[in-house]
Amino acid sequence: MTKVLAAVIPEPHAPVEVRELDEPELETDSALLRVELSEVCGTDVYLQQGRLEGVPYPLIPGHVSVGRLEKIRGRMLDVEGHPFREGERVTFLDVHRTCHACWHCLVARASTRCPHRKVYGITYGQRDGLSGGWAEKIYLKPGTRCIRLDAVEPETFMAGGCALPTALHAVERSGVRLGDIVLVLGSGPVGLSSVILARMSGALRTLCIGAPAPRLEAARDAGADATLDIEHHDEGRRLAWVLEHTAGRGADVTIEATGAPEAVVQAMRYTRDAGRVLIVGQYTDHGEVSFNPHLDLNRKHLDVRGCWGSDFSHFYRAAQIISDPARARPWSQLNLERFPLAHANEALAAVSTGRVIKALIDPQS
Amino acid sequence: MTKVLAAVIPEPHAPVEVRELDEPELETDSALLRVELSEVCGTDVYLQQGRLEGVPYPLIPGHVSVGRLEKIRGRMLDVEGHPFREGERVTFLDVHRTCHACWHCLVARASTRCPHRKVYGITYGQRDGLSGGWAEKIYLKPGTRCIRLDAVEPETFMAGGCALPTALHAVERSGVRLGDIVLVLGSGPVGLSSVILARMSGALRTLCIGAPAPRLEAARDAGADATLDIEHHDEGRRLAWVLEHTAGRGADVTIEATGAPEAVVQAMRYTRDAGRVLIVGQYTDHGEVSFNPHLDLNRKHLDVRGCWGSDFSHFYRAAQIISDPARARPWSQLNLERFPLAHANEALAAVSTGRVIKALIDPQS
Amino acid sequence: MTKVLAAVIPEPHAPVEVRELDEPELETDSALLRVELSEVCGTDVYLQQGRLEGVPYPLIPGHVSVGRLEKIRGRMLDVEGHPFREGERVTFLDVHRTCHACWHCLVARASTRCPHRKVYGITYGQRDGLSGGWAEKIYLKPGTRCIRLDAVEPETFMAGGCALPTALHAVERSGVRLGDIVLVLGSGPVGLSSVILARMSGALRTLCIGAPAPRLEAARDAGADATLDIEHHDEGRRLAWVLEHTAGRGADVTIEATGAPEAVVQAMRYTRDAGRVLIVGQYTDHGEVSFNPHLDLNRKHLDVRGCWGSDFSHFYRAAQIISDPARARPWSQLNLERFPLAHANEALAAVSTGRVIKALIDPQS
Amino acid sequence: MTKVLAAVIPEPHAPVEVRELDEPELETDSALLRVELSEVCGTDVYLQQGRLEGVPYPLIPGHVSVGRLEKIRGRMLDVEGHPFREGERVTFLDVHRTCHACWHCLVARASTRCPHRKVYGITYGQRDGLSGGWAEKIYLKPGTRCIRLDAVEPETFMAGGCALPTALHAVERSGVRLGDIVLVLGSGPVGLSSVILARMSGALRTLCIGAPAPRLEAARDAGADATLDIEHHDEGRRLAWVLEHTAGRGADVTIEATGAPEAVVQAMRYTRDAGRVLIVGQYTDHGEVSFNPHLDLNRKHLDVRGCWGSDFSHFYRAAQIISDPARARPWSQLNLERFPLAHANEALAAVSTGRVIKALIDPQS
Repeated sequence: MTKVLAAVIPEPHAPVEVRELDEPELETDSALLRVELSEVCGTDVYLQQGRLEGVPYPLIPGHVSVGRLEKIRGRMLDVEGHPFREGERVTFLDVHRTCHACWHCLVARASTRCPHRKVYGITYGQRDGLSGGWAEKIYLKPGTRCIRLDAVEPETFMAGGCALPTALHAVERSGVRLGDIVLVLGSGPVGLSSVILARMSGALRTLCIGAPAPRLEAARDAGADATLDIEHHDEGRRLAWVLEHTAGRGADVTIEATGAPEAVVQAMRYTRDAGRVLIVGQYTDHGEVSFNPHLDLNRKHLDVRGCWGSDFSHFYRAAQIISDPARARPWSQLNLERFPLAHANEALAAVSTGRVIKALIDPQS
Repeated sequence: MTKVLAAVIPEPHAPVEVRELDEPELETDSALLRVELSEVCGTDVYLQQGRLEGVPYPLIPGHVSVGRLEKIRGRMLDVEGHPFREGERVTFLDVHRTCHACWHCLVARASTRCPHRKVYGITYGQRDGLSGGWAEKIYLKPGTRCIRLDAVEPETFMAGGCALPTALHAVERSGVRLGDIVLVLGSGPVGLSSVILARMSGALRTLCIGAPAPRLEAARDAGADATLDIEHHDEGRRLAWVLEHTAGRGADVTIEATGAPEAVVQAMRYTRDAGRVLIVGQYTDHGEVSFNPHLDLNRKHLDVRGCWGSDFSHFYRAAQIISDPARARPWSQLNLERFPLAHANEALAAVSTGRVIKALIDPQS
Repeated sequence: MTKVLAAVIPEPHAPVEVRELDEPELETDSALLRVELSEVCGTDVYLQQGRLEGVPYPLIPGHVSVGRLEKIRGRMLDVEGHPFREGERVTFLDVHRTCHACWHCLVARASTRCPHRKVYGITYGQRDGLSGGWAEKIYLKPGTRCIRLDAVEPETFMAGGCALPTALHAVERSGVRLGDIVLVLGSGPVGLSSVILARMSGALRTLCIGAPAPRLEAARDAGADATLDIEHHDEGRRLAWVLEHTAGRGADVTIEATGAPEAVVQAMRYTRDAGRVLIVGQYTDHGEVSFNPHLDLNRKHLDVRGCWGSDFSHFYRAAQIISDPARARPWSQLNLERFPLAHANEALAAVSTGRVIKALIDPQS
Repeated sequence: MTKVLAAVIPEPHAPVEVRELDEPELETDSALLRVELSEVCGTDVYLQQGRLEGVPYPLIPGHVSVGRLEKIRGRMLDVEGHPFREGERVTFLDVHRTCHACWHCLVARASTRCPHRKVYGITYGQRDGLSGGWAEKIYLKPGTRCIRLDAVEPETFMAGGCALPTALHAVERSGVRLGDIVLVLGSGPVGLSSVILARMSGALRTLCIGAPAPRLEAARDAGADATLDIEHHDEGRRLAWVLEHTAGRGADVTIEATGAPEAVVQAMRYTRDAGRVLIVGQYTDHGEVSFNPHLDLNRKHLDVRGCWGSDFSHFYRAAQIISDPARARPWSQLNLERFPLAHANEALAAVSTGRVIKALIDPQS
């Protein structure tokens, strides 16, 4: 039986180890993907720290990946109804098994809250097969939604990675209008993609508050008109800076992409009356925060919108955008670093400390 | 010079006293309204307690009133362009001087946040003339927007009072859809009007959590399908009750109309994933509250919308609704109590303790 | 082998005939429904006239039906995830096989335009099995979405029939606001349900232009504030009537539910500037009509919205609404007539001539 | 008394003539603008041809202009509340006297349909004073809304001219989403600005069908990914071209900016199911056109939106966008031609024949 190398988090807090696993038999309408690149994102750091619920360790991380279809059994179709062929380069939506049959899917049309969803590399574990991208191959179960990538380099695609569709969902849901001033809190991958996409959606000016300095430089390279380093400016100074850049009113739209509970409240305070606040940075439980509902929300007539997950529409449009050379430029400038499977722990450390903007796993190297 | 009696709050914490004031000279395109009924709302209690900022005491309270046009100088037009005539019964939008010239009015189209707005009975004080409804007459300054009331009894109109347009704004902004389950927190005037209007907007079921018992009875009479007394059920029990009534999911829409900061966070918890939360009860600063942005907002993919003030559109449509007998019925059943000017302090006490649903000032009695 | 009687349209223009068909073997996760009532709607008249494309004659008509689950093989779940049991009374969404995998479903989120959809009684024919409601039994293929009906009489449910979810989609998409004046063109089943649902959505006044007189009487009973008989008033008089009832401005929202191309243009003319026009009556090709894009559309700043089909959300909420006794009242008053299978041709004639508001097939009688 | 030269259309069909008019006395809070550049747009051609209703000839055309404030009497404030000073370069919203007091302004919030609006250079005539830009000076009546232009060259601003806010309104109302394919019909100023703004709003691809060739070249320079010359391709070929560029589905959004009634129907046919069609080219009555409501609208589940006029929000954001050098680039490349007052007839001819993309009047030359 063919063997496949995969990097595995055995259990929370344990270091990643490379394991030799069996290549599975293919079910009808499934495929095997030979991985070219997979992503190391902040969620993977949390997975190693055991901060997410419902994770079936041992786990092969890597939810967004690019590779070539090595074997297809039966057929897999794209959304146009055309079959994929062996050898084609694709990516796939990490979310699997959105049921399209439950109340959330069918009545509320809130498929990102479908309770049947499973996510490759997060809620599918090693026992579910080759279900994460930190491996030589991924088993694409029936119903997995692939997208052909023939016009973009794998590394450019991965520069967007999972952050791009997440940010696309956030920016779209934030309702950016032509001429808006958009403030992004956070300069990690989601924050940087939000800066790029806010500008692409018609924002006249984009501001970014984050850290450390190299990421803010990346934000400016990506189109941010002004940035502020959170490490060197206290809350009062930050608010003053936002007001200076917004004619004293606050941003039309603020996108929170930080992970820090305090940032949610600051986002409200940095936003103008009757503006919109989009919360997309709170993917993990970092505890509570206090706010004043009168001053921060009701009197300001704010719209505060939580934004969870993404669906195929976000992923598809993200792939289209990054496949367009003129559109892809800001992502292609981001600083990435590649790691072989055996160095996955260093990759996690590089992301965890913010040393790199994004780490990639290259399982064939 | 003709004299006019008015009930005045001399300064914060001082009891209301009846004063004899001069009837003013009319400017061009202004009018004098002989008051039939004016309202005592929760805001008036706060005004007497000095809890609002920017109030120019001494103050004649009473922001929503009904009366007859006693004198018109020049002309006052309705929105159809027809002039009002002396003797007609009207009400008027308490908000005056929305400027239609500032950034908030013209660019953001957020006129309820126009900084030039003045409100009769709240931010116009005695020094601004006869500017509140707790008086025999009100001076309607040029630009005041009146609405003819020829198909509704003054008392029925006042049963809606300022709560009706406020709730209309809230319910409209909450985006109630046909078939929704709407939960209203609070059973004061805004809560009761929200129950009625949510049902009128297509809610299949409306739930109300509030107190005391007579107000919950009023809520049921007004169309609430189920009510819960907050005084006899702790937070855990309340959440369980909401889940029992919503197939375990939470309400599609929750409207917070309580005044208590905690209710804002409870509203998020009582609402289903991807639902909407409307905050309209935080008109006064009652301090901070703590919440968990991951669990309460981001992961739930909620829309949380602050809702401030109302504009002429809300007031006009509110007047149309309550002028329609079939529509007005739930309001006409509400328990009101009338007080002469001299008993304004009792009226405040009756509202403050929740003894009556709404107190009215009848300045001619 | 058990035999099942079904009324069949053999081919376009041929009369309906009763045939004896074989009861099918059940596939896994399918069921057999013993039909209590099925519907005769205007579409069935068109099906008999051969006016729809893509219909696989011979055809068992009847797309909306009520019955009891006689046999279930495997399991069928409701949207809450609970299994249906044999003996339960249910209805089912006539649309089957929405694919949730194509560009329209996943990227455009326009599942009513999914090209893979099949409709029981319309695009499923006799060769697809017992696939229409004009039969003693219907074969519910795997994936058919049922809804339990335990709180509503079959006849009341059928009074809404397919028109209710269609109208719900239309009214929802038309964006009725609290206080709007809504004009409905057409007094057939979709028109009548639109009147009811527009009122239920907060319309202050609903107007209806249609024919013949008994249907207009039904419209008034259902809540229309004023009606006009199209047969006795020419176009000029109709426009004048609309303006009389709308302060000279036209309706805030007009819902076209007639089938006549001219009505689409009249709908634009009857609507106020910056209002909304919803087109839901053009389910069949009745040819072209001429309009003036400057006068009728651009200068009026209109929103004209076509509305096709419905999805499970509309059907589910429709079932919830009509299962609520207070909500169901206007439908329960509609004049229905029941026909046995053998009289299906008379049923078609009764609908075609407008003699009844709705005809029902009772296949067990 | 100081004299001012102005180009005047004496009556429909008469050639423009230069007249010497009196400089007016300034009312309180009014100003005199020394014109640097004014615009010749398609509407001016129609004005000379007498194709618009309600025009009070003799007329000084020129609704969008740039100049310096020569004299201010009293004060004129910007939307931030800061006073303008003499010598500052400004433009002003051509629409004056939006009443903010009628049903359309206050209840429908449809101020572009306010019946009290007056437009400089169109519905203000010579008898209303120096009310058009084809003059050495314009009299800015009280209430005229100016915008400071300190970061943009007059010629760049005029390259956007009245088309930019019109297109901004259209593009915004069309609801372009990130990743959309947007088709623009028409390559005149509004069409070109629509191409630029659709791209700026997140369109992945913009297509343009228009004529003549130099304008299509301008469209490509402005960012259109593909263009088609309407003069060399019949209707069938055009539809095929659109389908080729949209995966066979039609555009997500089509913006009609042509003036030809047929284009409205073509726009529907070129748009994908459940897409949006924005009609902004029908500012003049060019007669009727025929369409099929079933095939073109209802079955396609289209949104067809008429778009009339613009308000201060559009104008303000247009000015902000074109004041940003990176954003202004596509407009600054457009081919303009300047004409002195005495050559206004040639300017009209240049626009009428499509020889230039935009003609400007330079009244000081």
